[in-house]
Amino acid sequence: MLPVGPGPNAKMRAVARVHQVTDVDDPRVDDFRDLATADRRPDRPGGRGLVIAEGVVVVERLLASPYPVRALLGVRRRIDALDEQLAGVDVPAYAVEPDVMSAVVGFHLNRGVLAVADRAPATTAEDLIARSRRLAVLEGVGDHENLGALFRNAAALGIDGVLLGAGCADPLYRRSIRVSMGHVLRVPFATFDDWPGGLPLLAEHGFRTAALTPRATAAPLAEAGLDRGKVAVLLGSEGPGLAEDTISAADLPVRIPMSPEVDSLNVATAGAIVFHAMSGAR
Amino acid sequence: MLPVGPGPNAKMRAVARVHQVTDVDDPRVDDFRDLATADRRPDRPGGRGLVIAEGVVVVERLLASPYPVRALLGVRRRIDALDEQLAGVDVPAYAVEPDVMSAVVGFHLNRGVLAVADRAPATTAEDLIARSRRLAVLEGVGDHENLGALFRNAAALGIDGVLLGAGCADPLYRRSIRVSMGHVLRVPFATFDDWPGGLPLLAEHGFRTAALTPRATAAPLAEAGLDRGKVAVLLGSEGPGLAEDTISAADLPVRIPMSPEVDSLNVATAGAIVFHAMSGAR
Repeated sequence: MLPVGPGPNAKMRAVARVHQVTDVDDPRVDDFRDLATADRRPDRPGGRGLVIAEGVVVVERLLASPYPVRALLGVRRRIDALDEQLAGVDVPAYAVEPDVMSAVVGFHLNRGVLAVADRAPATTAEDLIARSRRLAVLEGVGDHENLGALFRNAAALGIDGVLLGAGCADPLYRRSIRVSMGHVLRVPFATFDDWPGGLPLLAEHGFRTAALTPRATAAPLAEAGLDRGKVAVLLGSEGPGLAEDTISAADLPVRIPMSPEVDSLNVATAGAIVFHAMSGAR
Repeated sequence: MLPVGPGPNAKMRAVARVHQVTDVDDPRVDDFRDLATADRRPDRPGGRGLVIAEGVVVVERLLASPYPVRALLGVRRRIDALDEQLAGVDVPAYAVEPDVMSAVVGFHLNRGVLAVADRAPATTAEDLIARSRRLAVLEGVGDHENLGALFRNAAALGIDGVLLGAGCADPLYRRSIRVSMGHVLRVPFATFDDWPGGLPLLAEHGFRTAALTPRATAAPLAEAGLDRGKVAVLLGSEGPGLAEDTISAADLPVRIPMSPEVDSLNVATAGAIVFHAMSGAR
């Protein structure tokens, strides 16, 4: 996507908010330092808890999200491309030369702009269930890229929210955000405190639950009627799949018919197929 | 996947076919040298034309494929894991220590085993069309990972073959093979000599052709009836999509209904959704 051209007041606004940084050790850019080696579980105690967005499109989505943005860091051209989105947002943008940026971040970042935000207060699983119609429920999705891709597919295909069971990675880790193309900042998510003990919450709110599994006795997706009513689909990671207890806790096991020579699909790909079947969109 | 245990004659067979290599400069392993910098278009004139498989599972699929295997290179444990598959295959396996392997290949390869094969004679588009019922037709899929993922999804979801139009990467490039989990070695493919001028071949063989496009006037996938008869779906790359001429040459434009805030899906993901809709599998 090409950057949107700046509006008529662009230059004045940009001048007002942008600070040039030339010193690699400037403490104002500490949030962006050594990202490749920074904590991989920023959500856990001891983690910095920061939300990092990379590239113009994802930074745009962060600016439009509920996460309070702390600052931007980027080359001048990329910051200028965000000028419209920065109007009325009271955050500093630190403009740097590409070599300073690489030295701060710890690697070459060809997207040219970053933003950092604090976490927002977590939504509870029950809150999210109460205001949704179509949900994805994930178990054991510990891979940041798969998790990000699931959020991207959920956003594209009309899923209202994502619930996280045991063993999932942090959706707000930098790589999840990037692979989701920033949609993890838009699709609400919540974590079950009790897993799989929290699943009955879904039935209490009128949801049918479908567990995706390759077992031959499961209903083929096309016959499962997931395009009707309030539906939550349970998805496990590619290798082990959903735990036996989790499948038992669901109303209906569902399968995607597959060639006998192939043992699995990527979890985000399988999710996309199911989300499309749930949408019933015409 | 855990390696299959060796059969009763395993030890004898393994001893007979495995050659220990200790010298990094041994010319017998030249096929495996400096893979990261080797030609990225091995299919083109001047390219070496070699097909490289990485890891036990993908090497198994190469051994079962029509591509004539030239040799294996790997650590002893991984070669032994392939013993059953190597029975009756007259190829040398070069066993090396991990540091020799890294020095030959040019990087650390944690899958521990490689195989190399020659290309097989190409299938013509018309041959492939004549013996298929469900086809994927790709245009402009220049990214090796997307191409590999498309082949993996095609294999899983019952697509009989893949036709390549203009602008596609080489399916037999190492990274495509890896991302496809070796399924590119199983799903037949062919290249159109004339693009999009060759598309009428599909109609001549009784195929309906559906072009995937986000345009609002296209038929929603669920209503397009792609689960009946001989169907070929045309898929373009994520950014530009299919060319206007290509969409016009198809019988029917089809869309995957998407949220208005999201502009696209990954091409392999979109392909998976369509392939599932084409399968009509119960």
